[in-house]
Amino acid sequence: MVILDGKKLGEKILGELKTEITGLNKKLRLAVVVVGQNPVVEKFINQKRKAAEFLGIDFKIYPFAEEITTNELRKRLSEIMHEKRNTGVIIQLPLPKHLNTQYILNAIVPEKDVDVLSTKAVGNFVVGKSEVMPPVAGAVKALLEEYKIDFQGKSIVIVGAGSLVGKPTGLWFLNEKVGFSLVESGTLSPEEIIKKADVLITGIGKPKFIKGDWIKKGAVVIDAGTSESGGKLSGDVDFESASQRAGFITPVPGGVGPVTVAILFKNLIALAKE
Amino acid sequence: MVILDGKKLGEKILGELKTEITGLNKKLRLAVVVVGQNPVVEKFINQKRKAAEFLGIDFKIYPFAEEITTNELRKRLSEIMHEKRNTGVIIQLPLPKHLNTQYILNAIVPEKDVDVLSTKAVGNFVVGKSEVMPPVAGAVKALLEEYKIDFQGKSIVIVGAGSLVGKPTGLWFLNEKVGFSLVESGTLSPEEIIKKADVLITGIGKPKFIKGDWIKKGAVVIDAGTSESGGKLSGDVDFESASQRAGFITPVPGGVGPVTVAILFKNLIALAKE
Repeated sequence: MVILDGKKLGEKILGELKTEITGLNKKLRLAVVVVGQNPVVEKFINQKRKAAEFLGIDFKIYPFAEEITTNELRKRLSEIMHEKRNTGVIIQLPLPKHLNTQYILNAIVPEKDVDVLSTKAVGNFVVGKSEVMPPVAGAVKALLEEYKIDFQGKSIVIVGAGSLVGKPTGLWFLNEKVGFSLVESGTLSPEEIIKKADVLITGIGKPKFIKGDWIKKGAVVIDAGTSESGGKLSGDVDFESASQRAGFITPVPGGVGPVTVAILFKNLIALAKE
Repeated sequence: MVILDGKKLGEKILGELKTEITGLNKKLRLAVVVVGQNPVVEKFINQKRKAAEFLGIDFKIYPFAEEITTNELRKRLSEIMHEKRNTGVIIQLPLPKHLNTQYILNAIVPEKDVDVLSTKAVGNFVVGKSEVMPPVAGAVKALLEEYKIDFQGKSIVIVGAGSLVGKPTGLWFLNEKVGFSLVESGTLSPEEIIKKADVLITGIGKPKFIKGDWIKKGAVVIDAGTSESGGKLSGDVDFESASQRAGFITPVPGGVGPVTVAILFKNLIALAKE
């Protein structure tokens, strides 16, 4: 069994980006819009801040109170967008429930949308005209490439169709004309489908939902689920039992997460180059 | 075995639209951009023209020579777009190979994009903010609803990820959070996956590629493939043998096609209402 070491791959990508960025005649800055406070979210933000510091990229947090309205946030976001120094803008998700997330995301122009979440950026990606990939899909791709895992002709199963993991990964496979099976909340026997997966990609945020004996012997398990369980970050897969059967498996933390952060900065640089 | 009668359903939808349109205080016109000449394409255009005549909607063909360049067509399309009388604009596909299809499609604003093919319209659809559905996906939905076929928890298989059938239908299921399997050219044993389908949706344009003994007993077979074979329109499924095993099956012609045309006009009316 091989651990898909996302920490190592993330550092490798950041190292390559550091070389690339020295040739870039432009100061980059990532603007991070944060609404409210949340210790888990803060952990994620700190990972991004660290990567930015390593690359010598400016990193600016725009904090807003939990109570902000959709219209007010959208207005403020437009100002942040038009600030020339901000070459990339992200909104830390999830936003509080009272906010219209997609409407707010749509204030980000595609040239600064490093998370590929605005309607325009998603459209560009779906029709195959995007320079950048949604970060989690990019991380899945980078992990498969790094470990030379060929997925053509394999049975691929995606668990969850959320906007950050399942949907963009499914869109990527659709574009690559690669078949896959999608398991969602309405699927009657998820374990029957999951048991057939040569490559399993999950992003539902249910701690240890996927049991070890659902994993096909030798399967590739990419766990992009993140949830908090007893104060600790947990994936969707029960790592301990699943790692007994998998051929390749990502740990949580240290798997998809650090690669996703690296891809975010890869996107920032790619968009700045255009 | 039940034949999914698309001709009848198409007429039913058009009948409902005719009632709806009488309440609409606006003259509608569908602009159809046609490049070059092709007898099969002309058949499709005539179906649309007939539906428009039935509804009392103006129908205007804009013909262009096969040799037109991408830039010239895009320019002319902008003019067609800005003509107020054109409340909907479609481009008859496929375009000749030398043209940049997506760039040309992107000249259509979402409010007139009844085919849901521009990057913006696709993005709106993917993020769940579209008033209209891509016509073939809308036709699949309408057929399933009309025949009260419940697909929740069923094994759904889509064959092909093209921009007119497989991709929009897959995007629709992604949005509905319904699992499906996608079979594409890289899939090693397509028949093994197809044989497990409770609901099979195909759109590859390979005449009779799917054999009768690949069909699960009682399956729902929706054949959105259209290709010419010996001067006749043919689907992806060998209807004669497949209908021996299917529970529900669309004929070609007379299945998905007429419903797709009806949904196109449903979209035209829905967008005009906004």
